[in-house]
Amino acid sequence: LQNTSDAILRGEGIPDEKVRWPQGFHSGTIACGLKESGNPDLAILATSPIANAAGVFTRNQFKAAPVLVSQIHLDNAGHISGLVVNSGNANAGTGAEGLAAAREMTVELAKKIGSPPDQTLVMSTGVIGKKLPIEKVKQGIGQIPLNAGVDSVAAFARAMMTTDTQPKAAWVKTSAFHLVGVAKGSGMIHPDMATMLAVIATDAVLEPTQLKKALGHAVDCSFHRISVDGATSTNDAVVVLANGSSSISPNMLTFQEALNWICVSLARQIVADGEGASKIIEICIEKGRNERECVQVAKSIAASLLVKTAFFGEDPNWGRILAAAGQAGVELDLSQVDLFMGPIALISSGEPVSFSAPQLKQVMQSQNIRVKLVLNLGDSQAEVWSNDLGYRYVEINAEYTT
Amino acid sequence: LQNTSDAILRGEGIPDEKVRWPQGFHSGTIACGLKESGNPDLAILATSPIANAAGVFTRNQFKAAPVLVSQIHLDNAGHISGLVVNSGNANAGTGAEGLAAAREMTVELAKKIGSPPDQTLVMSTGVIGKKLPIEKVKQGIGQIPLNAGVDSVAAFARAMMTTDTQPKAAWVKTSAFHLVGVAKGSGMIHPDMATMLAVIATDAVLEPTQLKKALGHAVDCSFHRISVDGATSTNDAVVVLANGSSSISPNMLTFQEALNWICVSLARQIVADGEGASKIIEICIEKGRNERECVQVAKSIAASLLVKTAFFGEDPNWGRILAAAGQAGVELDLSQVDLFMGPIALISSGEPVSFSAPQLKQVMQSQNIRVKLVLNLGDSQAEVWSNDLGYRYVEINAEYTT
Repeated sequence: LQNTSDAILRGEGIPDEKVRWPQGFHSGTIACGLKESGNPDLAILATSPIANAAGVFTRNQFKAAPVLVSQIHLDNAGHISGLVVNSGNANAGTGAEGLAAAREMTVELAKKIGSPPDQTLVMSTGVIGKKLPIEKVKQGIGQIPLNAGVDSVAAFARAMMTTDTQPKAAWVKTSAFHLVGVAKGSGMIHPDMATMLAVIATDAVLEPTQLKKALGHAVDCSFHRISVDGATSTNDAVVVLANGSSSISPNMLTFQEALNWICVSLARQIVADGEGASKIIEICIEKGRNERECVQVAKSIAASLLVKTAFFGEDPNWGRILAAAGQAGVELDLSQVDLFMGPIALISSGEPVSFSAPQLKQVMQSQNIRVKLVLNLGDSQAEVWSNDLGYRYVEINAEYTT
Repeated sequence: LQNTSDAILRGEGIPDEKVRWPQGFHSGTIACGLKESGNPDLAILATSPIANAAGVFTRNQFKAAPVLVSQIHLDNAGHISGLVVNSGNANAGTGAEGLAAAREMTVELAKKIGSPPDQTLVMSTGVIGKKLPIEKVKQGIGQIPLNAGVDSVAAFARAMMTTDTQPKAAWVKTSAFHLVGVAKGSGMIHPDMATMLAVIATDAVLEPTQLKKALGHAVDCSFHRISVDGATSTNDAVVVLANGSSSISPNMLTFQEALNWICVSLARQIVADGEGASKIIEICIEKGRNERECVQVAKSIAASLLVKTAFFGEDPNWGRILAAAGQAGVELDLSQVDLFMGPIALISSGEPVSFSAPQLKQVMQSQNIRVKLVLNLGDSQAEVWSNDLGYRYVEINAEYTT
């Protein structure tokens, strides 16, 4: 936990016991048999009082059944008293039967927590195109014990995991509100295709419109900065629930800052846990014409496999970085760019610069590498996070369903 | 060599001795020391009479020095008496010095073959961002012996290779003209970032405008069908030279068909030789609204790493195929699509279909797999070629410059 200047406590990573859900939230998990490993694969988060809620969902044309159901429920009511998440099966590409299964999950949850079904949400992650064994899931929902105790946040984060190697959480506590987020996601080569789920809970008093706007901003500067061209998997979902149990309407700037911090933290944890990844690569584009173009150039570099494999090989192949920037669809002037790897200048005004090879080697060996490309075309900047790509990614993805 | 119905001889792959350059073309190769392996890395193709020429070059914002020089020469003159290609060094990202080096290559070639320098072309492929040792290259150009003998086409194709494991060639012979093409390229994950070079020579009589139009069509239905979103590497170039030594103006339909066939053949050879690839995946989109949308959907599937790694694992993960289609930026209706893997239906009107698992396994084990996605939205179709992705790709690309 870090103590920031304005008495805001915040932290990230695997939650310790100081971290519990905000007041009024309860959760529970169970292993209902969706994961072959026998690990927990089903989780419920419930809130009383009922929460105002907002969500950002995948923009993929093929939306999974749980996304379709949750979107309708949020649009109808905007008030949510609970959500159920399963891992091990995405319930995507499963046709009419899959849609019925997603609805049944909300009905079962609603029964358990005493709520109308359309005031609940459902999220799924795992293999696409496999029929969800709905009876197992219904039975699991019925059996989950709900509590607000020590480890409930960590257990929830663990039950969401698929190829993740670490549970992911972040939290902020101010005098006015408490904010806790958990997430799952890895498979970061084309991050847009690995399902990313996040659930964020707060006791702040917030209107649905305030919540929606704040979440949109936070997602734009976090989860959308690890995704390529804004597209997403069939199941991606980020939801925030505000149950108002603190009875305090927070300063919106403070709340936005806290929500941004949580989303950026979760997004970076996802990148760091990319399938087989050993490094985080921070791609900073500076002095671009506008933020949109900076993001576009940064994402083109972030998505380049040639760049990712070069970082895996600890090879400072800056030619691949420039080539990736050059195909971003943004007008650039090579004769003006400066490129830095960590603190070391590699290119200045488009010309190669001599540098210390041992120093550069040291930068390439570190776990967190900052690539800075200065376009010298304007005053805007943007940052995007990527990771390296190695053998382990191929192994995980070639063998995922077999 | 296949004998087609209209007495057109054509063939592809490693050229045998029946295949020589069209009349009036001479070539030669040498190892000038750019490749550590000591293999040939420099090649010249010269023509007398002088040829009309056309070229299609990379759309990357960062164009390599040889691309800039060749584009200017083609725009100025449109008449070309020779070209020089080197492998082992891309002469890209090399600043003003690199531009001077590319010009010097054309000057040295011009001297050798007795031509104005601006009637020559230069192409380079290899590592980006490394200074070209121009003295070695100039010396090599001076020493290359030019001839039109047995093996000259194959030798030329070999001297262009970088990570290619096979030389690539295709040829067509009709009563009116002779057409021979060679190419290099692999690294097919983001095919747009692996340098692809092709040189096509013909003895047909063709105006520069006819040649330009024909090459544009041919590239659109071939090399652009193995590239993602139309972007290309810093060095990509396809050039065609027509020296008119047959004295026959060909039927343009016949010529276009022959040029298309050569370009499609070379493009498919590049895909088949993708770094570490073991399979060709033919992605056919049918019944789309228009060709552009079909190509867009096909390329989204072709570029998906999750799809590529699934094919490497011989895993018929059709969920990944649909997810990739769904993020192509094209409006689709999942409830209408049909999906086939080889002859086997997997999805019909959006619903999973039961199929024979052993039969499907057999399809997945073959070296050439046809994926057909029927959108049922219109009458258009398109085909794009991809390949699988395995450990070998990572190995090649993580260690390319070290």
